[in-house]
Amino acid sequence: MAGNKGVAYVGKGTVEIQDIAYPEFVLRDGPGVNKANVGRETPHGVILKNVATNICGSDQHMVRGRTTAPEGLILGHEITGEVVEVGRDVEFVKRGDLVSVPFNIACGRCRNCKEGKTGICLNVNPDRPGSAYGYVDMGGWVGGQAEYVLVPYADWNVLKFPDRDQAMEKILDLTMLSDIFPTGFHGCVTAGVTVGSTVYIAGAGPVGLAAAASAQLLGAAVVIVGDLNADRLAQARSFGCETVDVSRGDPKDQIVEILGVPEVDCGVDAVGFEARGHGHDAGTEKPATVLNSMMDVTRAGGGLGIPGLYVTGDPGAADAAAREGSLSIRIGLGWAKSHTFATGQCPVMRYHRRLMMAILHDRVQIAKAVNATPIALADAPRGYQEFDSGAARKYVLDPHGLLSHA
Amino acid sequence: MAGNKGVAYVGKGTVEIQDIAYPEFVLRDGPGVNKANVGRETPHGVILKNVATNICGSDQHMVRGRTTAPEGLILGHEITGEVVEVGRDVEFVKRGDLVSVPFNIACGRCRNCKEGKTGICLNVNPDRPGSAYGYVDMGGWVGGQAEYVLVPYADWNVLKFPDRDQAMEKILDLTMLSDIFPTGFHGCVTAGVTVGSTVYIAGAGPVGLAAAASAQLLGAAVVIVGDLNADRLAQARSFGCETVDVSRGDPKDQIVEILGVPEVDCGVDAVGFEARGHGHDAGTEKPATVLNSMMDVTRAGGGLGIPGLYVTGDPGAADAAAREGSLSIRIGLGWAKSHTFATGQCPVMRYHRRLMMAILHDRVQIAKAVNATPIALADAPRGYQEFDSGAARKYVLDPHGLLSHA
Amino acid sequence: MAGNKGVAYVGKGTVEIQDIAYPEFVLRDGPGVNKANVGRETPHGVILKNVATNICGSDQHMVRGRTTAPEGLILGHEITGEVVEVGRDVEFVKRGDLVSVPFNIACGRCRNCKEGKTGICLNVNPDRPGSAYGYVDMGGWVGGQAEYVLVPYADWNVLKFPDRDQAMEKILDLTMLSDIFPTGFHGCVTAGVTVGSTVYIAGAGPVGLAAAASAQLLGAAVVIVGDLNADRLAQARSFGCETVDVSRGDPKDQIVEILGVPEVDCGVDAVGFEARGHGHDAGTEKPATVLNSMMDVTRAGGGLGIPGLYVTGDPGAADAAAREGSLSIRIGLGWAKSHTFATGQCPVMRYHRRLMMAILHDRVQIAKAVNATPIALADAPRGYQEFDSGAARKYVLDPHGLLSHA
Amino acid sequence: MAGNKGVAYVGKGTVEIQDIAYPEFVLRDGPGVNKANVGRETPHGVILKNVATNICGSDQHMVRGRTTAPEGLILGHEITGEVVEVGRDVEFVKRGDLVSVPFNIACGRCRNCKEGKTGICLNVNPDRPGSAYGYVDMGGWVGGQAEYVLVPYADWNVLKFPDRDQAMEKILDLTMLSDIFPTGFHGCVTAGVTVGSTVYIAGAGPVGLAAAASAQLLGAAVVIVGDLNADRLAQARSFGCETVDVSRGDPKDQIVEILGVPEVDCGVDAVGFEARGHGHDAGTEKPATVLNSMMDVTRAGGGLGIPGLYVTGDPGAADAAAREGSLSIRIGLGWAKSHTFATGQCPVMRYHRRLMMAILHDRVQIAKAVNATPIALADAPRGYQEFDSGAARKYVLDPHGLLSHA
Repeated sequence: MAGNKGVAYVGKGTVEIQDIAYPEFVLRDGPGVNKANVGRETPHGVILKNVATNICGSDQHMVRGRTTAPEGLILGHEITGEVVEVGRDVEFVKRGDLVSVPFNIACGRCRNCKEGKTGICLNVNPDRPGSAYGYVDMGGWVGGQAEYVLVPYADWNVLKFPDRDQAMEKILDLTMLSDIFPTGFHGCVTAGVTVGSTVYIAGAGPVGLAAAASAQLLGAAVVIVGDLNADRLAQARSFGCETVDVSRGDPKDQIVEILGVPEVDCGVDAVGFEARGHGHDAGTEKPATVLNSMMDVTRAGGGLGIPGLYVTGDPGAADAAAREGSLSIRIGLGWAKSHTFATGQCPVMRYHRRLMMAILHDRVQIAKAVNATPIALADAPRGYQEFDSGAARKYVLDPHGLLSHA
Repeated sequence: MAGNKGVAYVGKGTVEIQDIAYPEFVLRDGPGVNKANVGRETPHGVILKNVATNICGSDQHMVRGRTTAPEGLILGHEITGEVVEVGRDVEFVKRGDLVSVPFNIACGRCRNCKEGKTGICLNVNPDRPGSAYGYVDMGGWVGGQAEYVLVPYADWNVLKFPDRDQAMEKILDLTMLSDIFPTGFHGCVTAGVTVGSTVYIAGAGPVGLAAAASAQLLGAAVVIVGDLNADRLAQARSFGCETVDVSRGDPKDQIVEILGVPEVDCGVDAVGFEARGHGHDAGTEKPATVLNSMMDVTRAGGGLGIPGLYVTGDPGAADAAAREGSLSIRIGLGWAKSHTFATGQCPVMRYHRRLMMAILHDRVQIAKAVNATPIALADAPRGYQEFDSGAARKYVLDPHGLLSHA
Repeated sequence: MAGNKGVAYVGKGTVEIQDIAYPEFVLRDGPGVNKANVGRETPHGVILKNVATNICGSDQHMVRGRTTAPEGLILGHEITGEVVEVGRDVEFVKRGDLVSVPFNIACGRCRNCKEGKTGICLNVNPDRPGSAYGYVDMGGWVGGQAEYVLVPYADWNVLKFPDRDQAMEKILDLTMLSDIFPTGFHGCVTAGVTVGSTVYIAGAGPVGLAAAASAQLLGAAVVIVGDLNADRLAQARSFGCETVDVSRGDPKDQIVEILGVPEVDCGVDAVGFEARGHGHDAGTEKPATVLNSMMDVTRAGGGLGIPGLYVTGDPGAADAAAREGSLSIRIGLGWAKSHTFATGQCPVMRYHRRLMMAILHDRVQIAKAVNATPIALADAPRGYQEFDSGAARKYVLDPHGLLSHA
Repeated sequence: MAGNKGVAYVGKGTVEIQDIAYPEFVLRDGPGVNKANVGRETPHGVILKNVATNICGSDQHMVRGRTTAPEGLILGHEITGEVVEVGRDVEFVKRGDLVSVPFNIACGRCRNCKEGKTGICLNVNPDRPGSAYGYVDMGGWVGGQAEYVLVPYADWNVLKFPDRDQAMEKILDLTMLSDIFPTGFHGCVTAGVTVGSTVYIAGAGPVGLAAAASAQLLGAAVVIVGDLNADRLAQARSFGCETVDVSRGDPKDQIVEILGVPEVDCGVDAVGFEARGHGHDAGTEKPATVLNSMMDVTRAGGGLGIPGLYVTGDPGAADAAAREGSLSIRIGLGWAKSHTFATGQCPVMRYHRRLMMAILHDRVQIAKAVNATPIALADAPRGYQEFDSGAARKYVLDPHGLLSHA
């Protein structure tokens, strides 16, 4: 049996590479593992040799100490790899398959899975519906920023790439299927983005950029991305987006310059609960800023897609209400405009096969859009740090040296 | 030309019957008429002799002084009547037709109308998308709690009843088509209510009861209605609903007694911004109570339909945020549960023909569900007062003595 | 190990009760078993003690000799039973659970299952997408008109009733969840039936009656059922349907008498390929009659749901085209009316949980609508014969004497 | 008052330019005008100076003598022009506006229009739901292959381009909004084309090419176009489509070469009732060939969009059944694959605004895709002839010399 190394959260602001157990077809106790999941057998699982596993903005919430994530938690929920072991009960996934893994862990057997709501599977997280690898309060499934990882319910969860060589050529694109590409796409779909739409996407981090690329793929007429970070805005412009610098003030004023009208058809919140203010408030955390400004800039009858994460508990928040996830929201404005709001984890499985097809047939360049940047697993600490300091990059860890680094 | 009488708002807590102008095919200046609408020609309109015109909970917001409604505003947006004059440009509506009028005024010619979003028509209210008869900040179209009323864009707006005699037999049901039946139905549809659903409806006023009847019509398995008012809860039970007395505490605890689980599939907010607290807080206005408790009691993946009115400005609110329509909402909880939220005025035209068919073919008894209570136009002040004090009744004004009073 | 008895097709017009093998967690060779399925292991399955298992109209196609079904085929795809053995890989279904089984066998792991298209699962029938128990050319899964049956992929397929005693009280309703209730419901949903619709259902056999009950549950204003069989039409009238006797002639003429207009909003074909003509042609098989007459009576813009079975090969058909499933269809008429057509097996899993809720909460009386008639397993030959001769009954076999017989 | 010239059908195979009446706000008697429409007042109309008006494949059905179109019928239903006169009752369209006109004439006041089904408006054609300019059995509205044309119900029907100069720069693209671009798009939408789909489009005429461009805009992974005509196939390849030469045989064999599997997700029939056979039958009219082959090549669970025209009467058809629009369709195959079929005129208004946005913001080059070829009005006879002989061009008539000719 091989050894294993993984990226561990070891305290506010710090991750490190640790030697960790090689996966077994059982979930052992460890940091963050829900007691009710300890000892859970997973004959339905496969073990992957990870080919590409990305650092996600939502990992940063934990690393910044904004959650109750325990020290020693192995991080990582964006996983692409080769099947090296197949559990007893797996029927359609084979050793040697190269697969993408949705960050949502789902059983494929509960009411929600049967309804396609794999982001809120009822059977994998004893605490609440919904789960993910390497994430606080998500059941304790070991994270995938590692050399090897267990993927349970593999026949249900994994997406096999049809041709291994073809896939390796586009691996930096395909690795985005595990989370941010479907997540950005889901934000657009639930916001009602369609052919001819005008769209405002708040946030030019990887999810915002993935949402922007998704909006283009969906046929949007104009895609406008807002952020405070000049490099990330430049990245958005690099593939044809318009941009709004929210440090200059209210997005509405800049949108009218672009479109001739101060409103868009659809709004996507790719920021979430650590939002900062606009204009003079750009240096301060103002967690409801994005939601409220999206209601302001989205036309009556429009939709708001909210892939950005809002949490039920935020110990690091500025006030008591925000600490329990309550924000001061201009619901009266939204109501007057008949807005709809769609929240929650993206059910990756709803989209990943179709987005894979778009990648394989050159209909979208998602790696380029998000500036995919492969680095060695050992360099994960640097990746976390650069990403946190605002680098306009999506860091892709390369545990086995299978990716070409620039 | 006939005279005309209508119900005027004349100051906080008071309405009175006034002599008012008989409608013309032009919108004249008057209390609450938007300056940009003064003098607007309406050759596309018809004049109705009102047969039934109801008092609405949203009228009460104005009469309680919670808005900037001017004195002298003629109230009333729930209108059913006989066509007595037909404008020059009307082609398919005829003198003598008995019709239901959606409370939304819509042009039938703008982008939103073409998309079926008649609740946010772009051409009838100079202030913002969306309009209604007899309502503050809605363009100034004269209210229909009167003997006669002008209905613009009549070919587009009105729903003709196929047979006059058949319609008069069910007129107390059909009068609910102008607002509360479609509004309650829209709340259910946008909450995802379908065959087999379990539903929690917050509020047992007329809209809540109409939502409950709608949920049954949509095939819901269990319909639970919550309120503080014992009479209204008894009314809900009278047609097969389960009930929750929120003055006793959190709805979740009572829902688990009914269903065996503490959650429903779908939640409908039929209360809006004047909500009170639950349990010990039942005597106090707590405007976010309903929204937050619906997130609590609706299962992960469920939908929230919000026909209850939330406003952009509430001068009478308890705190500064609420005065501009901002409420402290547990968005983190909703996000964790992947909830969707649908807000805004019901686009009545999307539903009224189908609901008329259900009434005419005895598939629903909406008048009985909401306890329709016809009274003379002259008794409108009493109707407003009794309704405001919590009567479990829907008051239907009878300007021409055409309804049978109990 | 217990013995087992089942209903075998033994030649045109004849079924008999045979001693058959008790199920194992492997699919053994036998009449109608696809060679590629022989020896297939099913550790994901459960073995059921059948509580109720119904005779279906689609079984009659085989028994009438209209298919290539081999002698010895064990029939039956409408299965409700108690779990008596649980395969190694089953996690959420337990011994003692009382469950409904969708007639579609589905793996829960392929693209189609993930998309909710369980009627065309890719992994269970080597010949083509889609499978069923006890049916010709469907992979060879042993039929359930038997004492015991194997249900593969049990965690995915079965619907557990929440309370055993409650379920046994409504078992004649719940047994319809395995096929005809969802099938009729699917016909209505795909035809666009909704609150207020007028609906024409061709065929008053069990699926037609189930479609009629479904249309009512969906809120249809008027449900009209057409057939040649007076008893079946009387059965339809017994629960509030209007009826059309197609032996009297074209349905259009009778529809206009009912509705005042010659058209309905939605049409459902619950007859399929063994249709007879209308009026003078009522004694002759005219396989396109129903499809063509539905285009005639459905309004422009309406939908046609086609749960009635059309086949790719019909050796007993009257002409060469029909023998390969080609019918002379008035597509020009449908096109002029912008009709949509939805075909295929009902994906039972999409609906069964919701319909179970409607049954358990007394929102629908499906057993009464279809005239559910329990008989002993030994009486299956009589049931087949009476059903084939037009009895207005749905025969429910009772292999273990657990049902009350009238 | 100006004079007027238009393209008249004058007998099988022949059109000519005639002096015709300048439009008035009333529909006068003339060739093809339904008697019930003679004298109909249209104060809701506008008169357009036509800027671009295209020859359509469906015009060819008439010119080939395959319909009962009367001699003298003024042709043309693809209209883009400048408003030069405004009817008394028009409120939101102004003189000088440059507008696109949906080929469907719709009242904006009937049930179908309110439901967005403008292709089957109930009020404009006394014969049946649905109408068009210059078309047999469509009510008699005068065709738009002319210098000037009347557009009734203008506030409802027309789409104004936001900026005149910008529009004139893209006028060869924008002229496709009146019919073929939305029609092709509708075919794709109703076939279920979405991001990542594989699509087979039967027919590389202008509608087929527009469908192909639409499929790309919708994010399809692979778009395959089939035809017999080498020039048209080359045109399809010019913008990135794969092609199938059906004169070589069954499309399935060529599809497997392209995709590796013999099936696509979605099929679009852009041919209709004058289809020829495949392979050896390519020289013979085989009207059901396309429908049947689409069922063959579309995967189980896929959708078939059928924008290609099928008619209720075809006097020139080869057999009696086809003469009344009945074709021998392999419905058994479609049923086994759970196919859905969507037919009928495209409701242009559902799409044209969004497609205009896509054009104006350079998201699609529809003029290039269909090889838009402007010619003088006087050259219409040549245009008809070349188009009929298979030119891979979309002819755009230029009645006022406002277009640049190559």
